[in-house]
Amino acid sequence: MGGDNAPDIVVNGAALSARMHKNMQCLFFGDKNKIEPILSNHRRLSKISKIIHTDNAVLPNDKPTIALRKRKNSSMNLAIQAVANKEADCVISAGNTGALMLLALFGLKPLPQISRPAIASYYPTMKANKRTVLLDMGANLQCSAKNLVEFAFLGSTFAQVVLKVDKPSVCLLNIGTEDMKGKEELKEAASLLANISLPGSFNGFAEGDNIMDGNIDVVVTDGFTGNVALKTSEGTAKLIASMLKSAFKSSPISWLGYPLILPALYKLKKNIDPRLYNGGVFLGLQGLCVKSHGGTDEIGFSNAINVGVKMVQGQFNSRLADTIEQVNWQQEPKK
Amino acid sequence: MGGDNAPDIVVNGAALSARMHKNMQCLFFGDKNKIEPILSNHRRLSKISKIIHTDNAVLPNDKPTIALRKRKNSSMNLAIQAVANKEADCVISAGNTGALMLLALFGLKPLPQISRPAIASYYPTMKANKRTVLLDMGANLQCSAKNLVEFAFLGSTFAQVVLKVDKPSVCLLNIGTEDMKGKEELKEAASLLANISLPGSFNGFAEGDNIMDGNIDVVVTDGFTGNVALKTSEGTAKLIASMLKSAFKSSPISWLGYPLILPALYKLKKNIDPRLYNGGVFLGLQGLCVKSHGGTDEIGFSNAINVGVKMVQGQFNSRLADTIEQVNWQQEPKK
Repeated sequence: MGGDNAPDIVVNGAALSARMHKNMQCLFFGDKNKIEPILSNHRRLSKISKIIHTDNAVLPNDKPTIALRKRKNSSMNLAIQAVANKEADCVISAGNTGALMLLALFGLKPLPQISRPAIASYYPTMKANKRTVLLDMGANLQCSAKNLVEFAFLGSTFAQVVLKVDKPSVCLLNIGTEDMKGKEELKEAASLLANISLPGSFNGFAEGDNIMDGNIDVVVTDGFTGNVALKTSEGTAKLIASMLKSAFKSSPISWLGYPLILPALYKLKKNIDPRLYNGGVFLGLQGLCVKSHGGTDEIGFSNAINVGVKMVQGQFNSRLADTIEQVNWQQEPKK
Repeated sequence: MGGDNAPDIVVNGAALSARMHKNMQCLFFGDKNKIEPILSNHRRLSKISKIIHTDNAVLPNDKPTIALRKRKNSSMNLAIQAVANKEADCVISAGNTGALMLLALFGLKPLPQISRPAIASYYPTMKANKRTVLLDMGANLQCSAKNLVEFAFLGSTFAQVVLKVDKPSVCLLNIGTEDMKGKEELKEAASLLANISLPGSFNGFAEGDNIMDGNIDVVVTDGFTGNVALKTSEGTAKLIASMLKSAFKSSPISWLGYPLILPALYKLKKNIDPRLYNGGVFLGLQGLCVKSHGGTDEIGFSNAINVGVKMVQGQFNSRLADTIEQVNWQQEPKK
């Protein structure tokens, strides 16, 4: 098992999740000598867990193609194979993202209805308790109209199953909300989506700031744009935090007020706690695969597990197949 | 003249700028009956100003192509023509962005060395007093490697002339900083830039969060990605502000501390005051053109004027020509 703080956060995170999901069972792939002592601290988890020992691991700096060729017996690949062989329902990893994607793509294979799997995640918005799903976050740099339409199905099914939104609203990310603006593949995807029955509704184009306004459940874009949007958003949050800090430091009166506002800052921090939005999910494969952030802690890893559990319980793939198979691709779009 | 609060903010903004730039002269294009009463409040500005009357205006919802065909005598187009005819050095407008771009493109024409003009703007970063220039912000949805290389020249010359950075560092926006990642046009642009003498230095790829970390002077991207990055950043800032507000409201103790922290909040607001980052500049045309945000006030409009003044004083176009003409496009890139 991988990630900056493995195997501690993985086992401890699983212990947190096991308390919430009574039917959960765990397979831990990795070094038995490291996993066992941590697992022995969790009596209940020990009973529902099995360790599959391997010395081999995907390294943080392994190129994905190297991982594919040389890490067949790594903990990551063995975990993926367990899902492929139906020994497990979902693989959750905090290891090397690129390697996980490529190993999962080869090990689990895309669903027959999906030409390109995508990475999805969800974010806080300006409306309390309302989340927005964004995909693709980086699996596909350039996307055709057909890819984007498939992402709309992946994203809206994810919103139903994980965020429990009955009829998710879906938008395509663009640089204007007018019909005539944007790249050709976006216009083509929009015209396809207007004539297709999604699990929810298609609401046209959205702009970057709509990702956080809480009015849309699913925002669809190509992996390049989605990744830039994610990183820009993270950078902006860091920038504001650092400005707030330096503004406090430079104002003696404000320093006096600082202890008083701590409860509010704590609440803010909790609202935008990245650990709660930690499950990047690889959608469109024949098996379920959740990527946890590499630098997370046990709460973050537990949240990634919880996303996986919800997808298993909600039968993500069969629900997706039900809706996407009804599609009559009347005008077969360009590939 | 256009924008949500014209002509008040335009004339009052010009009055602010005229105090800073002693040699400035103003031509106001628009309804004389509206402009004159406001101008009469500013004795000094009146002396250095001239009103060119027109009843015609580009409307906020005019499609750019409609503006091009039907608004030849609009205040916007007459102002652009004044620059084209060398009666003015720079046009500054808070009107319809799309119309301004198209009218300026036709009226001012691209520079011979630039195949596609771009919109640039600059942003606060985590380092005090350090700004980062981002372009293109939306003029070109898809860009070739050659376009991106030209943007690198436009952006670094802008950083020199407006932000007074002697040797600006330039990066291409990508979804990873490794050499082998990203779209083909990005890799091609990177290999061209590695062999070209920029006004500053080429520092490889950057990711979305690097726009705000203060380590890069110029971030180059296509107009689609740049626009999404800008809007996502604005959306994130709004999200955090709204979360901060609701966190304060829900905590009585924090409300007590609120008056004490006002100086810090005031300083934060000043640091990220959008009015100070209000000059979106249309670079690569034979005449200078600055777009002020439509909903701004006189301080924002004055800042847009100040950007224009710096570009005139710094002889932006001749400085650009000096550096880009030295380029030996050894391997002529694909168009």
